[in-house]
Amino acid sequence: MKVIHDGREMDIRALWYQNESIRFIDQKILPHRFGYLDALSVEDVAMFIEDMTVRGAPSIGAAGAYGMALAEITGMNLEHAAQRLKRTRPTAFDLFFAVDRMLAAANEGQDLIDAADSYVDEIAEKCRLIGEQGNAIIPEGARILTHCNAGALATIDYGTALAPIRAAHNAGKKIHVFVDETRPRLQGAALTSWELVQEGIPHDVIPDNAAGHLMQRGEIDLCIVGADRISASGDFANKIGTYEKAVCAKESNIPFYTAAPVSTFDFSLTDGFDIPIEERDQDEVRYVGSELVCPEEASARNPAFDMTPAKFLTGIITEAGIFKPGELDQEKLQ
Amino acid sequence: MKVIHDGREMDIRALWYQNESIRFIDQKILPHRFGYLDALSVEDVAMFIEDMTVRGAPSIGAAGAYGMALAEITGMNLEHAAQRLKRTRPTAFDLFFAVDRMLAAANEGQDLIDAADSYVDEIAEKCRLIGEQGNAIIPEGARILTHCNAGALATIDYGTALAPIRAAHNAGKKIHVFVDETRPRLQGAALTSWELVQEGIPHDVIPDNAAGHLMQRGEIDLCIVGADRISASGDFANKIGTYEKAVCAKESNIPFYTAAPVSTFDFSLTDGFDIPIEERDQDEVRYVGSELVCPEEASARNPAFDMTPAKFLTGIITEAGIFKPGELDQEKLQ
Repeated sequence: MKVIHDGREMDIRALWYQNESIRFIDQKILPHRFGYLDALSVEDVAMFIEDMTVRGAPSIGAAGAYGMALAEITGMNLEHAAQRLKRTRPTAFDLFFAVDRMLAAANEGQDLIDAADSYVDEIAEKCRLIGEQGNAIIPEGARILTHCNAGALATIDYGTALAPIRAAHNAGKKIHVFVDETRPRLQGAALTSWELVQEGIPHDVIPDNAAGHLMQRGEIDLCIVGADRISASGDFANKIGTYEKAVCAKESNIPFYTAAPVSTFDFSLTDGFDIPIEERDQDEVRYVGSELVCPEEASARNPAFDMTPAKFLTGIITEAGIFKPGELDQEKLQ
Repeated sequence: MKVIHDGREMDIRALWYQNESIRFIDQKILPHRFGYLDALSVEDVAMFIEDMTVRGAPSIGAAGAYGMALAEITGMNLEHAAQRLKRTRPTAFDLFFAVDRMLAAANEGQDLIDAADSYVDEIAEKCRLIGEQGNAIIPEGARILTHCNAGALATIDYGTALAPIRAAHNAGKKIHVFVDETRPRLQGAALTSWELVQEGIPHDVIPDNAAGHLMQRGEIDLCIVGADRISASGDFANKIGTYEKAVCAKESNIPFYTAAPVSTFDFSLTDGFDIPIEERDQDEVRYVGSELVCPEEASARNPAFDMTPAKFLTGIITEAGIFKPGELDQEKLQ
């Protein structure tokens, strides 16, 4: 991804391996500051996942893969490392996929740094291909809604939902992006908008509440969001609020796409209601930054994800093409 | 409304006339501080409406009525006062209704303080009756979603959407309220939650994004919101985000009510799309309190209201009964 820092333009990833450690872009301090944090152990990696230094299903998967490589380097029992890493966050499927793949690589006697590097390179390449595939459904002049951050920060590079947007912009299409701010953690306002600023892509941040209104008024042509887990039927979990936007898009006959690598599919699930939904600390809702926004006495609920049934989905943009929900099955992929 | 301040329980209104001035609860400093601001002139009143010291359609109407009384006291031309007050905010119909009623009262030679007092007493009484009417549709144990603040702060006393909730609570029903925080200005988190704390009504604040998810999971039994203007057909304008919640409620077959005095109807409009929607300053989105939540370079859109078509509405709770959209017409009311 393009990052302009101290007047210098860099091409970097959300995280990478160097010198027996993993370097992460610290996503907690964006958009006003830019910096890195280094993980030296499996525990560091697990904590960086838990405290959201790194977030987004594919980047969490990449962190899990490199975490397993660190386990080998630091001499930690691989099964214990796998358990610790899998315990960090329950919704994203990529994490389990990546950790299990590294266990298999270890069983085959592969070098785990090489195995993690090639897993992460594959993610980046898949996202680049998602961009190419998705660019085909973005018309010249399109006004596109996105939710949360399904950008390069979340996916190592290019993004999932943002990959087609980057590709369309780079192809010279005059697009405009509406960015849901995405309470409670404001990843849209803080991260997606930051990525779009780096790339020079025109956009407006909007309150999550305004998306339905803009759809109703004909100001949005299509929606592209990410996915944390997709069931065999095409039901999918993504950041809280995705479901509301999808229901409103259908009401206004606006195409609604999710963009995700095929590894986001969990073919063992046929019903999206079986995807576990993480409830996070209520203080993420009660506070914005250091500001308490409700009475001290008030409690809050904080479901971090929701599930959008397949019937609201126009298509799934993957590295292997664009599919209708349910069209992709495990056999076809093998 | 019940207000507990410095350990003392008071029964006060959102604003009232005293000593040739109008005293307003300062809604900008809630929920962490409590205090008053006094308006001594029409310009003060207009500024308190514009800077949201007072907000909510019926309270803005009351401010307009008292503002006209202040015009008389201070010797300001009444037509000029009416123009200044009507220019403050474009969406709420009550303001125009109240100011025109005061102009008519002046033409009839009435004392404008008495006329404003009786207009405002009528609002409070209507809200009390909305509570009685609406209590009938709240089952024992109901879990109720509300959006923004349609409470006593917004409506002089009792509230519109909150009046049935207060009445159900006072009748001993064990209800639970989910309060949309209502970005960008967070009136749900800051004001509705504050009112519910004063009354001891159990509730959780939620991100606006979570309402659809809770509906989908069967955690919400009914929705009650306020209204800023209702067309003859039952299309209605209310705080941004209302439309999204209404669309999701219909998807989950959850009853969705608006509660408003009959004066909120604008029978000159048959199509809700003719209700003007105010766009406010983008910094209300870019900032939460003093915290900039997006990159300095990012722009934002900030439509303050949206329009919910009548087809999403189960009923309209008024002081005169509960009506289906379109069932109320001007002839029936006269």
